[in-house]
Amino acid sequence: MNHMDVPQFLGLLVVILGTAKLFGAAAKWIGQPSVLGELMAGVVLGMSVPGLVDPKNEVLHLLAELGVVILLFEIGLETDLQKLLQVGGASATVAFVGVALPFGLGYVICWMLGLGNLVAIVAGASLTATSVGITARVLSDLNRLNEPESQIILGAAVIDDVIGLVILAVVVGLTHGQEVTVLGVAKTTGIAFGFLAGTLLVGRFIVPPLVRWASRVDLPGTPTILAIMLAFGLAWLASVAGSAMIIGAFAAGLLLRGTQHAHEIERGVAHLGHFFVPIFFVTVGAAVDVRVLNPADPANQQTLLVGGLLIVAAVVGKFFAGYAAFWIKGNKKVIGVGMIPRGEVGLIFAQMGLASGVFDPGLFSAVTLMVMVTTFMAPPLLKFLFPPVLPEQKPPEPEGIEDLVTEA
Amino acid sequence: MNHMDVPQFLGLLVVILGTAKLFGAAAKWIGQPSVLGELMAGVVLGMSVPGLVDPKNEVLHLLAELGVVILLFEIGLETDLQKLLQVGGASATVAFVGVALPFGLGYVICWMLGLGNLVAIVAGASLTATSVGITARVLSDLNRLNEPESQIILGAAVIDDVIGLVILAVVVGLTHGQEVTVLGVAKTTGIAFGFLAGTLLVGRFIVPPLVRWASRVDLPGTPTILAIMLAFGLAWLASVAGSAMIIGAFAAGLLLRGTQHAHEIERGVAHLGHFFVPIFFVTVGAAVDVRVLNPADPANQQTLLVGGLLIVAAVVGKFFAGYAAFWIKGNKKVIGVGMIPRGEVGLIFAQMGLASGVFDPGLFSAVTLMVMVTTFMAPPLLKFLFPPVLPEQKPPEPEGIEDLVTEA
Repeated sequence: MNHMDVPQFLGLLVVILGTAKLFGAAAKWIGQPSVLGELMAGVVLGMSVPGLVDPKNEVLHLLAELGVVILLFEIGLETDLQKLLQVGGASATVAFVGVALPFGLGYVICWMLGLGNLVAIVAGASLTATSVGITARVLSDLNRLNEPESQIILGAAVIDDVIGLVILAVVVGLTHGQEVTVLGVAKTTGIAFGFLAGTLLVGRFIVPPLVRWASRVDLPGTPTILAIMLAFGLAWLASVAGSAMIIGAFAAGLLLRGTQHAHEIERGVAHLGHFFVPIFFVTVGAAVDVRVLNPADPANQQTLLVGGLLIVAAVVGKFFAGYAAFWIKGNKKVIGVGMIPRGEVGLIFAQMGLASGVFDPGLFSAVTLMVMVTTFMAPPLLKFLFPPVLPEQKPPEPEGIEDLVTEA
Repeated sequence: MNHMDVPQFLGLLVVILGTAKLFGAAAKWIGQPSVLGELMAGVVLGMSVPGLVDPKNEVLHLLAELGVVILLFEIGLETDLQKLLQVGGASATVAFVGVALPFGLGYVICWMLGLGNLVAIVAGASLTATSVGITARVLSDLNRLNEPESQIILGAAVIDDVIGLVILAVVVGLTHGQEVTVLGVAKTTGIAFGFLAGTLLVGRFIVPPLVRWASRVDLPGTPTILAIMLAFGLAWLASVAGSAMIIGAFAAGLLLRGTQHAHEIERGVAHLGHFFVPIFFVTVGAAVDVRVLNPADPANQQTLLVGGLLIVAAVVGKFFAGYAAFWIKGNKKVIGVGMIPRGEVGLIFAQMGLASGVFDPGLFSAVTLMVMVTTFMAPPLLKFLFPPVLPEQKPPEPEGIEDLVTEA
């Protein structure tokens, strides 16, 4: 289904949204975060009707990316920058250890299996990412977004994305046989972190008067649409500047939080999120090839062995990274588990490895298996370690948890 | 820009939404309906940066179509079926006269200009359509959606769309040299009207319990997403059944109006509408080629003459169709003017004429000119004849005008 006519497209959206909501409700019914259901909906749709939900289809891919941009914008709107900065040191520590440890473990495993140096580097790199989207959505589902542990996870996941960009740039260079210089790596790193810092500094002066000016425009829905424009605009700018789109979207949310219309924007964007975000999770689920799980096929046995070892490296590496910020008081298990899901970021590495010829199909499947297991184990595990807070149970804490968090 | 990467796509959406809102606010500031500004935004974007807003781009086209489907769904949500049926006879009369009169005038003009029989038929056909989207949006901007005149216009415009489908099918057959049989025309007509009647009859029994059942699902945003799924689903079904998508979307709105969650759905869908609907109007505006308006170019003089005559036929034909329902009391000028805008439907006929080789580029431009002028004259004229009702001025009439209309 490469070119869609409009009725086909409408039918596809009905199927995607319907399955996502059905599985989301089912997940909630058995006590799991609804994002798990939406991911499962993608797996089932991708498996049962091959080609129907094709994550490589241009339109679906663009809508899914709107979904993740809107999701990170919503997360930014709900995140207190002050609190995020307070745990900044802990986040950075967790992020760096959470990159180094899985990378090292993955590299050693591949080396012991007799795979080449380049293969071991790319496989190790695929273990470094964290899907901030999945973890943030789970924490939001659990009404726990503003707890210290969640702040550390979110901060670390955002830093992870920046590191991920740098690693991706380096790995792309390596797979193309280019020389990787220290200067080049430093430049990529500087741009990625510089964009976030620069945007937040400049935006603090520009955004509030912009919101005040926009509020005088007498058109229905204007604050929400302008907020979306800011989110899309900063995401675009981030990408142009050589950083990650979701970092721009997250920064837009941080900047708009606390402005005059923040609550109205939050409610309006939530409606767009309910439409676009499930499309993202369904395409992530559909990108997973569950056929590698069939042990009856002898070709899968090697894949399952390598995949199993990579899963151990992926889980152990991130879990112990949670303990890296040893000086803080929070539940370190929660932090480690929150960093586990690889989601779409891991799949991007896997696909890049396959496309460049560094991975053979077996290793690609093994990395896919690692992504699948880490993505699906994190939501129930997080929920077990970090039980949901019901809106009515929430104590009126001095930290000022927003009552609107329950709407997300 | 045939294949877009994600940042390009985000940038394009920012440009489209930003220009639409800017021109929409400007239109409102000079006392015109904001839809006029959104159309102008499309013209300006299409003219100033050629290829930036390409209505034939797949992704943009699909998003624009989502916009018109959501718009007609919103209009359906705000439309009282009882009132619509009360004026059904008047609507049908206006619709049929409003098709026959412009068609006849257009045919005669082309025949007098010495154009062939087939050319005259296709040109006449391009004069028959009414852009229900534009008129409905203007009436909604004026807070007049539930007045008798508006009901007649809406009903007639919906019937017009059904007739338009039949004419399109016949004309496509003619341009492909096929024989057009009475049976074939009757079948197309029967399906088009049958779908609307069948959906409303069956839906009356199915939709309310569905909404009640859905309201028990404990996921945020569920009623809105299920409503969107019903709208998209019925639009898809309408298309599969051989009818027009927007008729399915309109039927979905009619069915959900008055159910338990109607107000919640209306508010939620409005947020999606603020995002998608401007994309539709901008692409309609961008499809208009304003270069044909330059009289300094000798090639344009013949086009301007033919276009001028077609404009007279288009305006006179629809205006007097407003008087066809002579027995009703309402303002017949308003009804006639409300039927004038041809919008995207007229452009579809023009493009089909060009693609099939029946129109030469000059006649295509003349039809485009007619579409442009009729589309842009209707909003200010309607506003002049049918002054807006301010929300606070609205008398508490026994007909029960919804206070939520003001949110649209």
